[in-house]
Amino acid sequence: MRASYPSFRAVLARDGIVRVAGVHDALGGRLAQEAGFQAVWSSSFEVSAVRCLPDASLLTMTEYLQAASNTQRALAIPVVADCDTGYGNALNVAHMVHEYEAAGITAVCMEDKLFPKMNSFAAGEQTLLDVPSFVHKLRTAKNAQRSPDFFVIARTEALISGLGVEESLLRCTAYASAGADAVLIHSKTKDQVLEFLRGWDGRLPVVVVPTAYPDWHIDEVAASGGSIVIYANQGLRATVTSLRETFRTIYDRGQTSALEGDIASVADIFALQRLADWQKLEQ
Amino acid sequence: MRASYPSFRAVLARDGIVRVAGVHDALGGRLAQEAGFQAVWSSSFEVSAVRCLPDASLLTMTEYLQAASNTQRALAIPVVADCDTGYGNALNVAHMVHEYEAAGITAVCMEDKLFPKMNSFAAGEQTLLDVPSFVHKLRTAKNAQRSPDFFVIARTEALISGLGVEESLLRCTAYASAGADAVLIHSKTKDQVLEFLRGWDGRLPVVVVPTAYPDWHIDEVAASGGSIVIYANQGLRATVTSLRETFRTIYDRGQTSALEGDIASVADIFALQRLADWQKLEQ
Amino acid sequence: MRASYPSFRAVLARDGIVRVAGVHDALGGRLAQEAGFQAVWSSSFEVSAVRCLPDASLLTMTEYLQAASNTQRALAIPVVADCDTGYGNALNVAHMVHEYEAAGITAVCMEDKLFPKMNSFAAGEQTLLDVPSFVHKLRTAKNAQRSPDFFVIARTEALISGLGVEESLLRCTAYASAGADAVLIHSKTKDQVLEFLRGWDGRLPVVVVPTAYPDWHIDEVAASGGSIVIYANQGLRATVTSLRETFRTIYDRGQTSALEGDIASVADIFALQRLADWQKLEQ
Amino acid sequence: MRASYPSFRAVLARDGIVRVAGVHDALGGRLAQEAGFQAVWSSSFEVSAVRCLPDASLLTMTEYLQAASNTQRALAIPVVADCDTGYGNALNVAHMVHEYEAAGITAVCMEDKLFPKMNSFAAGEQTLLDVPSFVHKLRTAKNAQRSPDFFVIARTEALISGLGVEESLLRCTAYASAGADAVLIHSKTKDQVLEFLRGWDGRLPVVVVPTAYPDWHIDEVAASGGSIVIYANQGLRATVTSLRETFRTIYDRGQTSALEGDIASVADIFALQRLADWQKLEQ
Repeated sequence: MRASYPSFRAVLARDGIVRVAGVHDALGGRLAQEAGFQAVWSSSFEVSAVRCLPDASLLTMTEYLQAASNTQRALAIPVVADCDTGYGNALNVAHMVHEYEAAGITAVCMEDKLFPKMNSFAAGEQTLLDVPSFVHKLRTAKNAQRSPDFFVIARTEALISGLGVEESLLRCTAYASAGADAVLIHSKTKDQVLEFLRGWDGRLPVVVVPTAYPDWHIDEVAASGGSIVIYANQGLRATVTSLRETFRTIYDRGQTSALEGDIASVADIFALQRLADWQKLEQ
Repeated sequence: MRASYPSFRAVLARDGIVRVAGVHDALGGRLAQEAGFQAVWSSSFEVSAVRCLPDASLLTMTEYLQAASNTQRALAIPVVADCDTGYGNALNVAHMVHEYEAAGITAVCMEDKLFPKMNSFAAGEQTLLDVPSFVHKLRTAKNAQRSPDFFVIARTEALISGLGVEESLLRCTAYASAGADAVLIHSKTKDQVLEFLRGWDGRLPVVVVPTAYPDWHIDEVAASGGSIVIYANQGLRATVTSLRETFRTIYDRGQTSALEGDIASVADIFALQRLADWQKLEQ
Repeated sequence: MRASYPSFRAVLARDGIVRVAGVHDALGGRLAQEAGFQAVWSSSFEVSAVRCLPDASLLTMTEYLQAASNTQRALAIPVVADCDTGYGNALNVAHMVHEYEAAGITAVCMEDKLFPKMNSFAAGEQTLLDVPSFVHKLRTAKNAQRSPDFFVIARTEALISGLGVEESLLRCTAYASAGADAVLIHSKTKDQVLEFLRGWDGRLPVVVVPTAYPDWHIDEVAASGGSIVIYANQGLRATVTSLRETFRTIYDRGQTSALEGDIASVADIFALQRLADWQKLEQ
Repeated sequence: MRASYPSFRAVLARDGIVRVAGVHDALGGRLAQEAGFQAVWSSSFEVSAVRCLPDASLLTMTEYLQAASNTQRALAIPVVADCDTGYGNALNVAHMVHEYEAAGITAVCMEDKLFPKMNSFAAGEQTLLDVPSFVHKLRTAKNAQRSPDFFVIARTEALISGLGVEESLLRCTAYASAGADAVLIHSKTKDQVLEFLRGWDGRLPVVVVPTAYPDWHIDEVAASGGSIVIYANQGLRATVTSLRETFRTIYDRGQTSALEGDIASVADIFALQRLADWQKLEQ
């Protein structure tokens, strides 16, 4: 009932382009896996949101790791853990790699913002860490890993911070030299990402997150040179709409008959829990 | 940003009939609160399901308490914690009350099944604990609480176990004498619950869970003598349907444009996270 | 078996001078309580050390809070939680106060170093946060508390950072104006602390930590104007010596007879666990 | 700084007789490792005691696993996790193996008592699980493991329950047939253990726990046919004595000078934390 899973590195080597769904728990992960996604993103935005807390480094590494680890244990596809800034300085990064790797996580992503961070789509200033310091954090991460399989994605927020495509290319080149296994280029506009991809020499796979440009088709991403696409938070946003309507309907109608045809059955949930497999263990 | 909340006992005293929504995290709790529910049920079925594990006493009190506590901290309405069998014998029950009360939970529910339990809707035998032992657990729970406000619901699974309405009335009478603050009558049919309510002398409020009889209107519940209604898992079931469709749509269409009109916006999520309030704390 | 406990504020109001023992778990707390200490210090140095990790903001707020909370639940005296820098910026501080207060902690201590911090006795530079930023963190903490009883100690590392007594007085005065309930003056030399106390106008109680000046008698501390003394880590240091010798003796001698007269009996441990009280709960 | 470690199976294969020290945290584990022990026992008695709770299945698998896992991450020798009864029935055992193995634990021990258990040295009845049920739990454990290296010790409490050596031999034979990797024979007298060893056909290694017969020398254990010796709680008992005296001395003398010569220095603690290695990571 506990599945084995390939490393994210193995998935990337096998597939042309990797599609990754943002989740915050094992159930979301299993549904993403059923839909065909090759990996899931244990999203700090989602994990914070289900606690009703902003995505601002309020929850701790302990809590994010628990979410990622609980998710991974239920899946046959790898988790990519959104590790924000690495939770502090280079010492924190080393500790993070020790802990995530020991928990069976095979890929993490770290961004070049300051700790504590604020979500990239929130209003307000986004200051970046200087390049040498982030390079040092990346080197420390790569030195801290025990298995050669462990995969570190370097995410630049240069475009979010208004520093331009040139700066993001310089940064990603430095991050690649520091040992990163992929780079993530985050932006509010597709044009900037496309410009980045045209300028990128392909030394490492590029991750994109098309939250703000939902029309970007996976085939176009691939054609433009992207290798990994993270659909970061659509699942959560659908959940909110669905839960909001469901609770309102129950409250307003005073009974749940109207819902029954539209929601999963209890038996559906049992199936997701693999109840029948577990019951076979009873004597 | 951290709300204060009344005890469940205070809510019950204030309102004619209390509607409770089943949830597994703080976000669900906040959406239930927005819809008007007066309390939420931190459901062991839901908390297990989001870990992709059956509701069979596999997760521990630590994990259920963490879910209940994280939910309570985000809400202005009380959490009723689904505590299964009390996690073992009377010693476990005393420890449970110490821990839940210390974490700010004001109401718990304990059922007369054996530990480890199996979900009531799962196939297979459901053996009950003998009455004196469960009475002892209830007495222990009531002795262990520090605040007079703490509220203990005694749930009988007599009807689920095929023991009949007579037995469920005898059991609930004994549980009332042992100090329970309310009784929960669980059944797969509304007729049995109605028969129970006709036979019940009203010495304690009665909780019902109309999962299997969704047509039972809140006004009819009240007219029949029920005081508390738990809509135990419809939120989770709606979430599964919604997530399943969302992930399939993203995967099959290769982009997310089609979803954008139907799912909450990122700004909606920020509002649920109270981001603006938090940002005011920045200097 | 779960004790009730006064707030730290109440203890300070009642006693002339408060003696606080550094601990990292409930057992240490109970032994400190037996010895007469009026409070315990849930030490981040100790909690890190028992994980074999440096006291450098590697463990998370989640882990420090768990240690403090587990300790408090076993005691009839209050825990003062060592909260390092408050785990980040003012938002982190607000979240910290929400979480610690909800867990029943009645006093926290926050220091004016940068996050991530390094232990004060470790070699290397110790940079301080600027005064306005720390003042903002203190104000945020005081605004975040729900009970008027909650107690916030402002700790300055000005002397550790080589900034001198004058600067430490200026800082503590600013911290008092920001709403701190006490100040902690940390130094490697007693002379500096005495100079601080001579210069302090007594507007708030002063906490001292005589790790590096073990000869400072409690009566002299009181006579000099100190109100609270934290014996921060002697318990851990004694434990290390004792465990080291015990394990070596067992290994070298190949049996444990030689130890039996010098170590607590199993019955002693049962007494600390309150086993007899718990056994009374069995039917 | 994070060590790699051999599996317990590998250690047993390599060494003639394996000495195991009982601990409850990483620091104890590191001191046991320094003393020469080849493995540590993450003791449920100790882990409960440091929470001031009896060893009676009050703490949860989550908490015991956290202790074992935190200990393992700091060590170059393997942890043997004391898993009591397996935390419930066969389903709980399968879940336990999934979780412990995923956390990097290479050996667990499970005993044939009922859940919830009471410590073997506590007064009162000790009822055993019937043999077929425990055999089923062992088979389930062995089927649940993913790596062939994972090691399951079957512990019989037959002697503690007064059932005699004959019964303990029958039970251990059944447990061996069910796939256990070693058997643990627990008793309050050495004579019974010796009688067991004389009667045992050697099909599996035997673990002994000489708490109540401290004079039993490791060489005699080996000569009698024992393969693994667990010194289960002497470290904790030494800690209690040491802490009790230390806190009393500080309180009674009003200063700590008298202790300084007898307790580890702050620098000693830094060395156990590997502070110098961590500081090298700073830029």
